[in-house]
Amino acid sequence: MSNRIQIFDTTLRDGEQVPGCQLNREEKVEVAKELEKLGVDIIEAGFPISSPGDFASVKAICDAVSEPTVCALSRAKKEDIDAAAEALKTAKRPRIHTGIGSSDVHIIHKFNSTREKIIEQAIWAVDYAKSFVEDVEFFAEDAGRADLEFLAKLTHAVIKAGATVVNLPDTTGYLLPHQMHQRISYLYEHVDNIHQATISMHNHNDLGLATANTIAGIQAGARQVEVTINGIGERAGNTSLEEIAMILNVHKDLGFSTGIHPQYLYPTSCLVSNLMGMPVQANKAIVGANAFAHSSGIHQDGFLKHAQNYEIMNPEDVGVPSSAILLTSRSGRAALRHRLSLLGYEFEKPDLDKLYTRFLIMADEKKMIHDADLKELVG
Amino acid sequence: MSNRIQIFDTTLRDGEQVPGCQLNREEKVEVAKELEKLGVDIIEAGFPISSPGDFASVKAICDAVSEPTVCALSRAKKEDIDAAAEALKTAKRPRIHTGIGSSDVHIIHKFNSTREKIIEQAIWAVDYAKSFVEDVEFFAEDAGRADLEFLAKLTHAVIKAGATVVNLPDTTGYLLPHQMHQRISYLYEHVDNIHQATISMHNHNDLGLATANTIAGIQAGARQVEVTINGIGERAGNTSLEEIAMILNVHKDLGFSTGIHPQYLYPTSCLVSNLMGMPVQANKAIVGANAFAHSSGIHQDGFLKHAQNYEIMNPEDVGVPSSAILLTSRSGRAALRHRLSLLGYEFEKPDLDKLYTRFLIMADEKKMIHDADLKELVG
Repeated sequence: MSNRIQIFDTTLRDGEQVPGCQLNREEKVEVAKELEKLGVDIIEAGFPISSPGDFASVKAICDAVSEPTVCALSRAKKEDIDAAAEALKTAKRPRIHTGIGSSDVHIIHKFNSTREKIIEQAIWAVDYAKSFVEDVEFFAEDAGRADLEFLAKLTHAVIKAGATVVNLPDTTGYLLPHQMHQRISYLYEHVDNIHQATISMHNHNDLGLATANTIAGIQAGARQVEVTINGIGERAGNTSLEEIAMILNVHKDLGFSTGIHPQYLYPTSCLVSNLMGMPVQANKAIVGANAFAHSSGIHQDGFLKHAQNYEIMNPEDVGVPSSAILLTSRSGRAALRHRLSLLGYEFEKPDLDKLYTRFLIMADEKKMIHDADLKELVG
Repeated sequence: MSNRIQIFDTTLRDGEQVPGCQLNREEKVEVAKELEKLGVDIIEAGFPISSPGDFASVKAICDAVSEPTVCALSRAKKEDIDAAAEALKTAKRPRIHTGIGSSDVHIIHKFNSTREKIIEQAIWAVDYAKSFVEDVEFFAEDAGRADLEFLAKLTHAVIKAGATVVNLPDTTGYLLPHQMHQRISYLYEHVDNIHQATISMHNHNDLGLATANTIAGIQAGARQVEVTINGIGERAGNTSLEEIAMILNVHKDLGFSTGIHPQYLYPTSCLVSNLMGMPVQANKAIVGANAFAHSSGIHQDGFLKHAQNYEIMNPEDVGVPSSAILLTSRSGRAALRHRLSLLGYEFEKPDLDKLYTRFLIMADEKKMIHDADLKELVG
């Protein structure tokens, strides 16, 4: 089994469908080109049946990128698969992504169907999609809550029908990491043709566990991960591309690799955030404004002595200009001395102590202390 | 071993030390009272030695709340512990939180010390803090990267010295959930007095795994979790209180409980975000603006048929007014019909189809479709 993890980016599909995140065709093409530069393996470009604008965007992305596979979403319906196939016509590496609900709650309350009929429809959809393209991914929606024995049967059936990838989404963001590990392990033990396809993770973040569940899935055998820039996506979003890429990068001990060039993570995050008008919170892992900022006195002192005391990655590795030492009333003497020295001031212990006392009073009042404030303090 | 998880909120200490998040005394008291209403067990109110303002705030919080334990941070230094004890004087349930680095990188590069000297200083600090208060929590900074055999020795020593709680922080946000589970399990197997204290998790989110690591720690025996509202905190932040509370609430199968009243989660999130001027990203789990919003056609249709198709929690449970159905070009006929019916319009299939075609053209242009747009469409 290969240890190369395929990065499937769905920023332009699961991300773009979010309230307020819609992009026009030119913007989608710009994001797709940036994703190609970043090194993603598969770009999910849209859901062609959903609107004429989305159809046209998928076509435009097929023409704009050359390295990544371009994937289009469809339900397990003829008109959806037809539209996906048509939109992908000029793609160098086209993939149709089709599927249907797999949990009993979806089968009964969404499809008013039965497990048997769902399997039939799934086989039909894969078979029909295969008449257009070789690379067909099947999604078993709400797999996270599906009966495991049924999920094994469904997985077996769609692989037999020719699915090259089987996506087992935790659609509602329900599972815990150890449960995900157990479930994927179960499938590897009980589906005898599972090695003929790639198993894919597509986890939602409703409980804050999408990233951990995706890693647990990889540890149990999944080799594709469906992720978005900044973790955007339906409700609480999807697994963050940047988190998965850097976990596998920092934890070489896991033995997995990706094709991601980490130095483009931060620029890509900024591009997507700006185009969509979706701010990234300051404390977002990897790409948040404060992800590499040190503010407490204990941390600043330790960081200045030796960056590894508080950093497991270099900000430069992910394209962030540099670690920031920010001065607030939680800063200590070491940080104050450091920032003063950058301004050309050098103070020895007794003078620094006096200055620090006045600095704290100012910082309790002003919250953030800027260079101009320091000059005033010294002057 | 009890299955009641102690919620230790450090919004006012690890959260408040973040660039731009500083609060004044009145604001801190307001947050502390809200945390009391929310049902947290311990409020870490500040780091008294760090500034006169922070010292005064800790004192004010002691007077303002009556149920939660109030905790003050200190390094393993006499002046720090003296300041913490002084600030906590009027607390009904005071706790001093003291500690020192435990990883070799911290011991060598931050303290220029040795493992032996660190243990001595740790014992001294616990012993000295015990001369002021009964409840003393010890933190072994950077425990996530500490040598495990040494961490076991250190844990044993501070419990023997009287520590009631031992906090084993993943200070740099480095660990993976299965590693956290193995490490805490190791300590339960190798520290013979470990059941005399509570083991606490304090995990940072540099790789997006703080929540998962905290859950893994609980599964291995930890019974206190150090969390913040909205996951704010140094760099990529701390474990989110709201995520842990709702994981334990949704996953009753784990068998753990907390004292949190979930209906105050969203109001508390809003209060902290507003006072600190720290926006919460729309796709933040539990408390983000989109956490319960459904936008794609597939999801909207499924949600309208049966909310459980796409929701594992009711938004009302966490104090969010209600699930939102937002109209964009990714919306389907079911959502359009639903929103039209709320406006008093009813359309049958052929008319709805015609309207839907025009709706999609409008939505591709306007991105978000509001009620006024719908009226224009119908009129």
